[in-house]
Amino acid sequence: MAELLKGVPVAAAINARTAADVEMLKGKGVEPCLAIVQLGNNDADTAYATSAKKKCASSGVAVKDVALAADISEAELIEKINELNEDAAVHGVLILRPLPAHINDDNIRAALKPEKDIDGITDISLSGVFTGNSVGYAPCTAQACIEILDYYGINLKGKDVCVIGRSLVVGRPVAMMALGRNATVTVCSSATVDTPAHARQADVIIAAIGKAGMVDSSYLSEGQILIDVGINVNAEGKLCGDVDSSSADEAAAAYTPVPGGVGSVTTSVLMSHVVNAAKIAAEKLR
Amino acid sequence: MAELLKGVPVAAAINARTAADVEMLKGKGVEPCLAIVQLGNNDADTAYATSAKKKCASSGVAVKDVALAADISEAELIEKINELNEDAAVHGVLILRPLPAHINDDNIRAALKPEKDIDGITDISLSGVFTGNSVGYAPCTAQACIEILDYYGINLKGKDVCVIGRSLVVGRPVAMMALGRNATVTVCSSATVDTPAHARQADVIIAAIGKAGMVDSSYLSEGQILIDVGINVNAEGKLCGDVDSSSADEAAAAYTPVPGGVGSVTTSVLMSHVVNAAKIAAEKLR
Repeated sequence: MAELLKGVPVAAAINARTAADVEMLKGKGVEPCLAIVQLGNNDADTAYATSAKKKCASSGVAVKDVALAADISEAELIEKINELNEDAAVHGVLILRPLPAHINDDNIRAALKPEKDIDGITDISLSGVFTGNSVGYAPCTAQACIEILDYYGINLKGKDVCVIGRSLVVGRPVAMMALGRNATVTVCSSATVDTPAHARQADVIIAAIGKAGMVDSSYLSEGQILIDVGINVNAEGKLCGDVDSSSADEAAAAYTPVPGGVGSVTTSVLMSHVVNAAKIAAEKLR
Repeated sequence: MAELLKGVPVAAAINARTAADVEMLKGKGVEPCLAIVQLGNNDADTAYATSAKKKCASSGVAVKDVALAADISEAELIEKINELNEDAAVHGVLILRPLPAHINDDNIRAALKPEKDIDGITDISLSGVFTGNSVGYAPCTAQACIEILDYYGINLKGKDVCVIGRSLVVGRPVAMMALGRNATVTVCSSATVDTPAHARQADVIIAAIGKAGMVDSSYLSEGQILIDVGINVNAEGKLCGDVDSSSADEAAAAYTPVPGGVGSVTTSVLMSHVVNAAKIAAEKLR
């Protein structure tokens, strides 16, 4: 039986730090505020927005809902982002992506002010992740993986970490963050010839592929730590991760459950970023 | 006997493309110009500046020498960089680094206009390397590694690439560039417990450590491709790479010599960046 690396206590620890900052800001008359920009209303976006709003409510963070038509033009969307950039009452902007195909994602990323980029999508935030210079904000899901490892006292120094997936939302940023913590990092992708062989050799696997249960016993060896970023729906209609949980339970030393693992930490990281952005904005006003 | 992946023909191919662009620009009355900023006169900086200037001369690129005192203040250096940013006759700025300890490298990197950052030191250039969005310019040495692999027809798709070293000048950028070419990439550093074991498993090793002959037979297996970024002076006072050449000759399928390998391609990449920056500037003027 492997240990479960549950997200709830990790989130609680982050929330406690955030709450103290919110209290301090309220004493100065500042209410942190997150703008959530959603185009259309697909289920995945709505589910994430709902969970972010619930977290905002429990964290004392105001929400500015920016619901836009799915067929809004790129120019109009950029105009909206400019308004949010200029709005001093808004401290962070979460743009639900992927965007519809008629909108160029790079142009939207470039439009957002880095100070308000609390989900790490701008070039400035991503360069901070790459250089390790703590400029900007890391993508929340990537940071959630690291927060879990930190909370459970798993030191990456000298460890072999296998990251499966190379997206800019998780794979590449979490690889750079692990490298910054002195891990030896291997990044596998869909182009990798033998991912199971790479995974078996690792001390820590970070699975961010988006395929239900793909990481089965063929990927695992005894005593590994598994961080499961996937949130998928399996054939029985149940929520599940990229890691096959019964294989994990048999071989791993510890793993994050789905649900209740990485996903339950992500919105806490998001709140901490919004509140941090509000603190920086408040200091600039003084 | 392993094949030698010599830099000279790779450089010649890059030079030919650059020469055509220089010709075209001269027809429009534009002379590409590289400013070289050197603080003090340590040997390594002077050697690199001399080799860059020679390359400029043979490429039809003008040089603006900006020789500054080693004890210049950070504010004065930033003022100088601002002048170069504003000087329309200057298309690229090469700042010889590492800078003296009293100057904050991050502040200098931030001062340079990304359009003139032909050696990939600004956050914008580095984010382009990280995201693969071809924004800005890649660090010249990292790109030189990739140019050599391309020239000799070595396709990285599905290959295991072991990068030894995680600097922002070579290790991390070349890792991201290899990942973008569909390699499976492992980044080893001084914190790695068993670098030889990782290296032995790779199809391609990119050595960027700066230790003479460190990569010996214990790092190698049959048939590998070795890209040697190191430029060191060995105990006999001779120039040598990070790879032990007699070990490479025995085990590898092919490797880059030192001297005459990566180093002989770097200034050609630098020229191509300056000329490209001049082209972009000329187009903006039209």
